[in-house]
This record gives sequence, C-alpha cells and structure tokens, in this order.
Amino acid sequence: MSDARKYFNLASPFAMKRGGALRGAHVAYETWGTLNAARDNAVLILTGLSPSAHAASNAEDPSHGWWEDMLGPGKAIDTTRWFVICMNSLGSDKGSTCPASIDSATSEPYRLNFPDLSLEDVANAAHVLVKSLDIDKLGCLIGCSMGGMSALAYMVLHPGSVRAHISVDTAPQAQPFAIAIRSLQREAIRLDPNWNGGQYDDERYPDIGMSIARKLGVITYRSAMEWNGRFARIRLEPEQREEQPFGFEFQVESYLESHARRFVRTFDPNSYLYLSRASDWFDISEYGGGNVMEGLKRIRIEQALVIGVSTDILFPLEQQEQIAEGLEAAGAKVEFVALDSPQGHDAFLVDIENYSRAIGGFLARL
Amino acid sequence: MSDARKYFNLASPFAMKRGGALRGAHVAYETWGTLNAARDNAVLILTGLSPSAHAASNAEDPSHGWWEDMLGPGKAIDTTRWFVICMNSLGSDKGSTCPASIDSATSEPYRLNFPDLSLEDVANAAHVLVKSLDIDKLGCLIGCSMGGMSALAYMVLHPGSVRAHISVDTAPQAQPFAIAIRSLQREAIRLDPNWNGGQYDDERYPDIGMSIARKLGVITYRSAMEWNGRFARIRLEPEQREEQPFGFEFQVESYLESHARRFVRTFDPNSYLYLSRASDWFDISEYGGGNVMEGLKRIRIEQALVIGVSTDILFPLEQQEQIAEGLEAAGAKVEFVALDSPQGHDAFLVDIENYSRAIGGFLARL
Repeated sequence: MSDARKYFNLASPFAMKRGGALRGAHVAYETWGTLNAARDNAVLILTGLSPSAHAASNAEDPSHGWWEDMLGPGKAIDTTRWFVICMNSLGSDKGSTCPASIDSATSEPYRLNFPDLSLEDVANAAHVLVKSLDIDKLGCLIGCSMGGMSALAYMVLHPGSVRAHISVDTAPQAQPFAIAIRSLQREAIRLDPNWNGGQYDDERYPDIGMSIARKLGVITYRSAMEWNGRFARIRLEPEQREEQPFGFEFQVESYLESHARRFVRTFDPNSYLYLSRASDWFDISEYGGGNVMEGLKRIRIEQALVIGVSTDILFPLEQQEQIAEGLEAAGAKVEFVALDSPQGHDAFLVDIENYSRAIGGFLARL
Repeated sequence: MSDARKYFNLASPFAMKRGGALRGAHVAYETWGTLNAARDNAVLILTGLSPSAHAASNAEDPSHGWWEDMLGPGKAIDTTRWFVICMNSLGSDKGSTCPASIDSATSEPYRLNFPDLSLEDVANAAHVLVKSLDIDKLGCLIGCSMGGMSALAYMVLHPGSVRAHISVDTAPQAQPFAIAIRSLQREAIRLDPNWNGGQYDDERYPDIGMSIARKLGVITYRSAMEWNGRFARIRLEPEQREEQPFGFEFQVESYLESHARRFVRTFDPNSYLYLSRASDWFDISEYGGGNVMEGLKRIRIEQALVIGVSTDILFPLEQQEQIAEGLEAAGAKVEFVALDSPQGHDAFLVDIENYSRAIGGFLARL
C-alpha cells in the first residue's frame, strides 16, 4: 500500500504535561503544496479523535483522505497557495507513538504504561514538528472537533506561533454531557472481558466494547433531524435481518453496525481510551484562573473563523460562541458562522458545500 | 414489606397482537381514591418502561411512589375527587406477567419463549382491567413516556372508552434516533456473555450490559443543559475515585454509576428487552394507512392535554406537537403545553411544579 506519511522524531525524553515522558517517540504527518520562500504560507490541521494524517490524496498516496473534498488544488484549503500539514495526534495509532507502540525500555507495547496523555501534549508535539520545518509562524491553524481543543492548547501554550485560526465544531472545555458519553464509551471497552486491563491481542480482542463505543459515538456525531429524513422507520429487507433474538430490524440499526464493523479492528482500543480521556480533561479555563473567557483571552492571534452547527449535541453551538467571544475579547478579528446543517457534529465531514464556503472564503481573505 | 398491589387475571388465553398468546397471565395494579356511584371519575395511568404500579404511597404501602408529588389528596391528580388506577405494564417484572414469570406449560420461566410483546398488548390488558372494575369510560387516561404510546394504542383500539387524555413526554411513533439508542441498550445486554441468550441467573447475570443500558438511558432521559448547571466539570474527591485505569473522575460519572447500581438487579433483563423493542415497534400510523396524522385522527375523545419539553432529545417536542395536532384534527379540544424545563425527558418526574400546574389545571376544568 502506498503511504504518504512522514515521521518526525520528538526530542527524547519528550516530557508529558501530567508527568512522565516518552523516549524515542515520533509523530506521523503528511503535507500538500509547497512552503514558500517567506515560509509564511503554512496551514496545520489538527484532527478529531479517530482520523489519520491522510486528510486528502496526494502523489504518494492517491487514496481518498478524510477531508478529501476540502483540501487540494482549487479547493477551500487551496494547496496551490498553502503548504498544508496534517499531523496524526500523538497517542493515536495511525503512525504516531501511541499505547500500541513498542516501549524501548521494555521491548513490549506500552499499553497502559503509556503516560497520561493530554491535548497539550498533542499540541506540543505539533509545535515542535512545525518548528522542525523551519516555520516560525503558521499562516493558519485549523482544528476540527478534538483537534479544535488541541489547537486552543497550541495557541495558548505558544504565543506568537499562529497568525490565523479556524475552529471547527469544537469546544473550550468538555461539558458533562460529552464527558458522560465518552465515559460510557470507555466503560464499554473497559468492561469487555477481552480488554483485560489493556492486555488484549488479535485472538482476544475487545470487539464488543469497541463496537458499542463506536455506535454511541456515531449516534452523538450525527443528528436526530438527519436520521428522520434518512432512515425514518424503514425496515431492513427480511434477508438483511439478523437471525437472532432482538436482532436488527430497522435500517438505522444496520447503519450503526456497518460503521462499527469498519472501526472496531482499525483503531487500537487503548489509544482510543487515552485520546478519549484527554478530550475530557482539556479545559482552556486552566489558563484563565478557572474562567473560560479569561483562558481564551490569553490567546494572541490576528484573525479567527469559528464554525459550529445548531444540530451538534456533543459540542453544542453555545460552546463555539464562547470561543468566538473569547478570541474577540483577546483582540482577534473574528468571524462566527453558525450553520444549520442537519448532520450534527459530523457536518464538517459531510456538508462540504457550507464548510467550504466559510473556510475557503476566510482563507482567501487572509 | 407492605404491598398495595392488586392482581387482575387476564382471559386465558390472552391473544397477543403479533401472534401467540399468554395463558394464566395477570397484571398488577394499585388504586387511590374511591370510584363514585356514576363510575365516571376513574383515571388510569400508564407508565414508562421501568416504573411499577406504585405511583404514590397509599394505606397499604406508605413508601414513596414514582409520582409521589403528583398524586394524592389535594395534589394535581386529586385522589379526593378521582379514583386513580396505575397499572404495571404487561411484560414488566413489577408484578405483571413478564418474561421472568413461570410459563405454566413448562413450569420454567418464559425467558425468550415469551411471545412478542407490543404496546397494543399493554393497552388491551389495561382495557380489560378497567372493564373488570365495571368502568365503561375513563374520566381521564394519562400516559407518560412509553405509557403515552400505550395510551394512544388504548384509545385507537377502544373507541368510546376514554373521555379525556393527558399525554406526557411521548411520541406517536419512535424516531430513528430513539430506535438507535434503544437498539444500542439492547445490544449492550445481548452482547454481555452473561445474558446467555436469556438464560441468566443470579450467579451469572448480565450486570455489565444492564449497567451500560441504564447509563445510556439516563444520559438520554436528562439534558445537557441541566448537567451544565448541576455537574459542570466538578471532580470527585480523591477518596471517591475508582482505583483503576480510566476510573471515574468527574461527578457526572459517579452520578451515572449510582443510577445504574440502583437499576441493574432490580429490573429483569429479558423484560427490559421486550419492553424496549415494543417501544420501537409502536407506530400510530399503522392505524392511518401509514400516516401519523391519519392514525391520530381515528382517536375519539372529548379533550386532551399534551405536554412536552424543549430539552427532551428522546421524544422531541415536535412529536408532542404532532399528537396535539392529530387529536385536534380528530375533533378533541386540545391544550398543548411546551415546557422549557431543563431536565429533559425526565422533567415529568422532576419539574413537579410545572407539570402539576398543567395537569392539575386540566383535570380541575374537566
């Protein structure tokens, strides 16, 4: 399989926010376009919990990326103008050092010996990657979902490192509803006997826990409104139904099942647990004496675009409003776009037309 | 323990809507107040998925009921005026015949040999119970949550049997979001190895599946808005935290855990599965040629009060609007009350002040 990933070795030891350090760690990333002579046309994308660095196809890897329609020549994030970097989060198993990686000290996978992971660690790894490319200041830092929180960490920890910011469907801190959902996802994995305290393998693998976690994710990433139009109460054909008690009968059930099947064995369960908990922990108010607005006001950038969706139940629109207000109070010129896309939190992956218009317009005006 | 339950034996065999029949089945119920000479002051309450018939304390059972503050002398449902009946749903394990009951044909619990259960069966059992009390026409039929769907079934199947109706936080049919949530709850139970195709016992019991199902229920019964005010990001005290990897750290997590612990061993898992699926199946449009409005228009009553809450994500307000519109189109005088209670679907159990005002006012005007 072709692979466009590059790898950047982090300083060793790489100190983690909550204590401990990684030795010999690296992050995977991909790039599109060309860095200009002034080195001021770089865009960094920080991702949600599960995507890889492969945001779009490129010469080395022509397969479709997770934001294929957003990124490329002539697209909203126009790679004929911008040098785009997408990094796989530290702690994610898509190429970066993660709990499934081999710990050089023991020659065994870290598993639960991986140190506590925070989104500040993700941000710090991204910052040293950018510095290693001899880029002093990002033209734009884009963060989607969890990546939006990592982006806030990046900006508050590294003043002067970002000119403009695009915040997509994210939050300045996790609210209790989102914590409850993620806690339950983690519990489904933890309580699966095959998780076995993190000591699973391909034979004994927590498929059930991962499947429940993923389905709960998909339910909260989309919206009831979209599903009313898309699935309503349509039944599966008799031959599609599960032949077991209480088996699937409605289309929406098999939709969730197919999402889960694609995910369960392609994401390391321990890495999922670490990233999920890092999302619960992140709180910009830590940088503002316990106050979200004061935390946001410590971010120094020139311009920002903040996008949210009215149908998002995981990162509700009021949280994007908070980000917009806080960045404006900090002195940035802020555009706030509230969309009515029916797809919920995942709208940024689906409603390309509206997100393209907002993101493309903002980048073109920079 | 004192017990106020009475039992009514259903005709044997008692035919079920989707096929099969129960033999020697019964339903449990409790009553408050006195039936008047004209036998026209009866109120029947049909419950949500998990409550028992013990809606309120009474002489035989002074323990608090699940709607204690709503029901009693001088309360919104005033038992000095009304003769109130609350029935435990057929298929529920709080006294009525259910999958945990002994099948007289085998002298073993039914478990999955219990016939398919529908809310029409619940409604039909309630109707024969009411007839057995020599009540031709209910003064008012109240249905909460799942019980609201059972009530719609009651009225559409038994024209002329109800004078007034109070519909509380319910829907004319399950939407795909609600189906997805319930399907995932059932799956958590079904995939628990201890469920064992319904053949569990006290030693091997699907605690994990039931716990996940209950937590997911509680998450969807309440609202993000309530939790922002109630839990925010408050941590547990160190001594309250779980000493295990990814253990609970936030108050909202231990809140869910305490809800789950109270539920897991007090509700029969197979009964939960049957009632949950019955909720997915119910669809008033079956009585209107596939059209919800046409189904509702077949209901013949004089007056109705329809209550819903803007923060309910499981039975969204638009579904109560549908019920109100449909009953009005059918010729009833309808009051529609849209509340902004922050507690979500469960508001009818918590926001007693607003629900009392609406329900008490409506009943007083009858």
